[in-house]
Amino acid sequence: MLDALDKNMLDEMTGLHELPAGAYNIRKNGEKAARNTTANIDIVTKQDKPGMDIIVKPGTVGESVHIPVIITAEGLNDLVYNSFDIGEGSDVLIVAGCGIHNPGDKKSQHDGVHEFLVRKGARIKYVEKHFGEGNGNGEKVLNPKTIIEVEEGGYAELELVQIKGVDSTKRDTEIKLHRNARVVVVERMLTYKNQDAESKINVEMVGVDSSAQIISRSVARDESKQIFYLNMSGHERCRGHIQCDSIIMDKAKVEAIPKISAFHSDSQLIHEAAIGKIANDQLIKLMSLGLSEKEAEDTILKGFLK
Amino acid sequence: MLDALDKNMLDEMTGLHELPAGAYNIRKNGEKAARNTTANIDIVTKQDKPGMDIIVKPGTVGESVHIPVIITAEGLNDLVYNSFDIGEGSDVLIVAGCGIHNPGDKKSQHDGVHEFLVRKGARIKYVEKHFGEGNGNGEKVLNPKTIIEVEEGGYAELELVQIKGVDSTKRDTEIKLHRNARVVVVERMLTYKNQDAESKINVEMVGVDSSAQIISRSVARDESKQIFYLNMSGHERCRGHIQCDSIIMDKAKVEAIPKISAFHSDSQLIHEAAIGKIANDQLIKLMSLGLSEKEAEDTILKGFLK
Repeated sequence: MLDALDKNMLDEMTGLHELPAGAYNIRKNGEKAARNTTANIDIVTKQDKPGMDIIVKPGTVGESVHIPVIITAEGLNDLVYNSFDIGEGSDVLIVAGCGIHNPGDKKSQHDGVHEFLVRKGARIKYVEKHFGEGNGNGEKVLNPKTIIEVEEGGYAELELVQIKGVDSTKRDTEIKLHRNARVVVVERMLTYKNQDAESKINVEMVGVDSSAQIISRSVARDESKQIFYLNMSGHERCRGHIQCDSIIMDKAKVEAIPKISAFHSDSQLIHEAAIGKIANDQLIKLMSLGLSEKEAEDTILKGFLK
Repeated sequence: MLDALDKNMLDEMTGLHELPAGAYNIRKNGEKAARNTTANIDIVTKQDKPGMDIIVKPGTVGESVHIPVIITAEGLNDLVYNSFDIGEGSDVLIVAGCGIHNPGDKKSQHDGVHEFLVRKGARIKYVEKHFGEGNGNGEKVLNPKTIIEVEEGGYAELELVQIKGVDSTKRDTEIKLHRNARVVVVERMLTYKNQDAESKINVEMVGVDSSAQIISRSVARDESKQIFYLNMSGHERCRGHIQCDSIIMDKAKVEAIPKISAFHSDSQLIHEAAIGKIANDQLIKLMSLGLSEKEAEDTILKGFLK
């Protein structure tokens, strides 16, 4: 069912060589390629539009859901809506992501809309990895939209990674936090050649004692372009912190346009952003250890993107 | 020529009790009230629109120009265009500002457009203080627009202060820096009651080795609203730093929307913003020294706004 190319792509996205344990749904070229449900995690195909409902029973702890999307055809435009209902008190890992292997010259695109309701006291870790490859000139385009609502005492951790091969991306992440809810977003992005990337993250803290941390790290090489809109608003007593660091190289362009909005005097919001090139003394140190300039650069960038 | 009220307002704006030494122009209720020029600094009334040209001869060092605007009438809408030509190698202090004493219930407004050409190697310190007072309900509105171009090796230091009594302000500051030019902007703002304030500062670093520092400190009390748009773009090897700190109290609202744009890989841009209330431990420390809560608060706010 999964051929060697599929397995290789699965590995890139999820670190898995075979079908994952637990619940999963693998979507290939716009079709369901494989699915598994468990006693606690159900996956139901949507009737009104492409996509699925993933329902995690209350109290489900230590389970995972993998929902990778594989595209190996050129000229495909795949759109999918997935809704997650994370039951009260559960604690689950969700691994999504999309790999496009575009063999031809026609654009292949995947737009995924993911909606999460993290119910009272529930916790999720959501990992989303995007990559593209292929020998032709066909563009690889990925536009994820992620909507997360975290109920009282809930926790969501997001790891959003775009490592290579994505020609164009518009990422849109909307998060709403209720009383005592917390979100941590870690975004890592590398662009090169003529790639362009836009990432919008908007966190609304509407509940008392909600808190949010956004960490965005990016490297822009060659002629690539990156724009970051990182917004946070506090409507109650809450704490938020945005940190946005970019390394810029070659002819790349990077813009950071954050927005912190305090609509309550007990909102504490902090934003930090820095754009600059690799520190020269770091390069020299590594080169004095015998690395070439290129190797030293790569080592630093890898460390920066973790 | 200047009555007791005028002198009091002059003091608030400039710290002067009498007419200043050096060049000056005092504008009162839309009319020229007093003017003095020096051998090196000429002030010429514009022919095509309200306002004046202030011409500083090359090499003028240690002189000052005071151009305060006093409004003591209700229902006045005063608009003025002032152009400064700062000759090569000069080093001058320019003190502007506007005080509105609105005795009635009709809105009084002053919009000042100030344009500066700081020529090669010249230095200016520009101080602008805004305040309003008056027993009626008439709004006091001040909308300054400041456009500054700094030529090679030039330096501009801006101190922009709005301390009290301004019901509404839209501040717009545009700065362009050429090779090796530097700007330092210090903005201090206090709003209270229903006041609203918007400040836009845009710094374009178009010259190699230009640098910019923006420090904005504000306190928002009562139901007042503040919005800060602090932008910086690097088009060459350059360094920029924006720091934006706000203390929020009561039912006030504060938004910080900075933007850093690196269009060159040797641009180094940093932004930091924080919105929060007065640190509790600071309050407690001062209160343990015998201050009331209100006194402790005032002491901290004064220190914060310097």
